[in-house]
Amino acid sequence: MADDVLEIAEIDVIRGEEAAFERAVAKAAPHFRESPGCLSLKLLRSIEHPSRYRLVVGWDSVDAHILAFRAWPGFHEWRRLAGPYFASPPRVEHVRAALEAF
Amino acid sequence: MADDVLEIAEIDVIRGEEAAFERAVAKAAPHFRESPGCLSLKLLRSIEHPSRYRLVVGWDSVDAHILAFRAWPGFHEWRRLAGPYFASPPRVEHVRAALEAF
Repeated sequence: MADDVLEIAEIDVIRGEEAAFERAVAKAAPHFRESPGCLSLKLLRSIEHPSRYRLVVGWDSVDAHILAFRAWPGFHEWRRLAGPYFASPPRVEHVRAALEAF
Repeated sequence: MADDVLEIAEIDVIRGEEAAFERAVAKAAPHFRESPGCLSLKLLRSIEHPSRYRLVVGWDSVDAHILAFRAWPGFHEWRRLAGPYFASPPRVEHVRAALEAF
């Protein structure tokens, strides 16, 4: 829908822990899927900076992420699983599609 | 395909020029589409920082972007159309999907 938002969380992972981090995200994915208002989840890995990831999560609103998910037990599970591999706090921003050309 | 890459160009636009920038991207899109190896183009707009955009372009390799597209006349057309609205040089990174959970 036009109102859908994407959360983009830029996450720098501790060097050498990339594979463990990826496994943690795969394990945490069901906690996102079960959260009301969560539409999609993918993990992108930087080619220039291989310890940098972007977690891209589709939500039906910013509130579904900030208010509902962060109060959801799944959020704590996500942080418990993936947090130990964060080199620094994730940088989180929300975006909306302005143009989908092709 | 698993080898596809996404270019993510973070672009800060001069305040007040957002609508003109979006029109320029729409006008430039065919130059991307015609470039060999270019698979998709979308423009995302930040909710927290409404003058910040992310141009997300799918390529079949990093070289298709860096070597082929930047030598392509369409690249100069893109810069001619959208460049006047850039507040600063775009920050460009390439990523690859590590996980597409749902």
